[in-house]
Amino acid sequence: MLNPKDFDVPANYQHWEGDKAEDRIGPFFFARQNGRIETAFRAEDRHCNAHNAVHGGVLMTFADYTLCLGANGGEQQFVATVSCNNEFLAPANKGDLLLGEAEVLKRGRSLVFVRCVIRAGDVAILTASAVIKLLR
Amino acid sequence: MLNPKDFDVPANYQHWEGDKAEDRIGPFFFARQNGRIETAFRAEDRHCNAHNAVHGGVLMTFADYTLCLGANGGEQQFVATVSCNNEFLAPANKGDLLLGEAEVLKRGRSLVFVRCVIRAGDVAILTASAVIKLLR
Amino acid sequence: MLNPKDFDVPANYQHWEGDKAEDRIGPFFFARQNGRIETAFRAEDRHCNAHNAVHGGVLMTFADYTLCLGANGGEQQFVATVSCNNEFLAPANKGDLLLGEAEVLKRGRSLVFVRCVIRAGDVAILTASAVIKLLR
Amino acid sequence: MLNPKDFDVPANYQHWEGDKAEDRIGPFFFARQNGRIETAFRAEDRHCNAHNAVHGGVLMTFADYTLCLGANGGEQQFVATVSCNNEFLAPANKGDLLLGEAEVLKRGRSLVFVRCVIRAGDVAILTASAVIKLLR
Repeated sequence: MLNPKDFDVPANYQHWEGDKAEDRIGPFFFARQNGRIETAFRAEDRHCNAHNAVHGGVLMTFADYTLCLGANGGEQQFVATVSCNNEFLAPANKGDLLLGEAEVLKRGRSLVFVRCVIRAGDVAILTASAVIKLLR
Repeated sequence: MLNPKDFDVPANYQHWEGDKAEDRIGPFFFARQNGRIETAFRAEDRHCNAHNAVHGGVLMTFADYTLCLGANGGEQQFVATVSCNNEFLAPANKGDLLLGEAEVLKRGRSLVFVRCVIRAGDVAILTASAVIKLLR
Repeated sequence: MLNPKDFDVPANYQHWEGDKAEDRIGPFFFARQNGRIETAFRAEDRHCNAHNAVHGGVLMTFADYTLCLGANGGEQQFVATVSCNNEFLAPANKGDLLLGEAEVLKRGRSLVFVRCVIRAGDVAILTASAVIKLLR
Repeated sequence: MLNPKDFDVPANYQHWEGDKAEDRIGPFFFARQNGRIETAFRAEDRHCNAHNAVHGGVLMTFADYTLCLGANGGEQQFVATVSCNNEFLAPANKGDLLLGEAEVLKRGRSLVFVRCVIRAGDVAILTASAVIKLLR
């Protein structure tokens, strides 16, 4: 179990176990706050692109993490992303603590609709929305 | 300069230099074929999620790579993704050679519209479309 | 100037003049409330599809109206939609008063990023997000 | 049954019966050509916005028509759009014959993934992709 403090993320966030690609791209962390899933990761040099901004793929992966945890509520329920739309609002930089907040708009029997905004401080960095399938 | 052969990718593909996050998530490779940009990467264990399928974030990052190279034609022209929409068609597995093909639909003065399909053999894995901004 | 009361929409909403297609598909109405743009239209039989639910194209057009007015703040500033993503959460029915709320996430020099949810009472019907270009 | 010739659309296209909103926004027509669904409509003054270009909502509705008919193959199989993403490439004008072509990328048991480009002559006007649900 990865420790958020080792990645300069506040200690109230926890790690979702079992996804090696996610850990390699991030790692990312989550917390349940007021019935919502919130997520966090600290941008380091290895997350950055040729412009020294956080890479779009890292941001989309973090958004997908946020949306999937929003859909499964942080439980060990497996999910699969059906579609994921992203808009890039502003660049994030090395050292930024990136925070995501998942908002579930509709929870169906097999499909969950979620959207999120990723922020660095007061600045909105990325907005995303997804259709997520609940797997048995 | 990374060598495609070291990553089990055909030798006619080349590496786009300078993006450390991309290399860490991939690495990915590209080639100009018949006036189009084609891209490739070999899925390994470290690209996979908890289901041993290629992680959605890796696929979206590879799609973004494909779309951005489609927009800049593989040149050292810098670009930034404005929006990127993804639909997940089928899972890809460890060992698959994933191939992308960028199709530029409109090249404006500052915005380029591109779409792509990522395939493993005959199976369509992911389709994506993006608005890409050309940077000065 | 169309009167909201003639279309069973509350009197505090107003009409945005000059778009004949919009009036024919809707008409739709808007109000500035607490610094935000809110929109409204009453679903009638002519807005419905073969299932007697409000047609997806009508909903996307109403979402686009909401997003564009969010981007121009209800002023006579012309705008053009660059991209618009929609997710359909639940069906809306004949007789429903559909209300939209635009949330501007980033206002750049030439591009504005907006998202909205369309609701019928407490039920979220459609969520959409767009990149909108400000025209001179 | 609406006649394509009454709407300045080639006679090999046919009308999909039963959707009053669609007919009011369009009407639109379709044909099966080489195993694919192609669609058509003639832009008239009533389809245009304040700039005398075809309204974005009309274009998204025509794209949705194209995508849904792509999903059901032009049969009386009912479908519902789950998500629909649109990028606006160029304006279309009054008098243009708009042609759409649906490309099914994946046909699952309950979900179909389709994309399309809407063109006016050689000019790509709109690209869209959707997740479509097959209804029983």
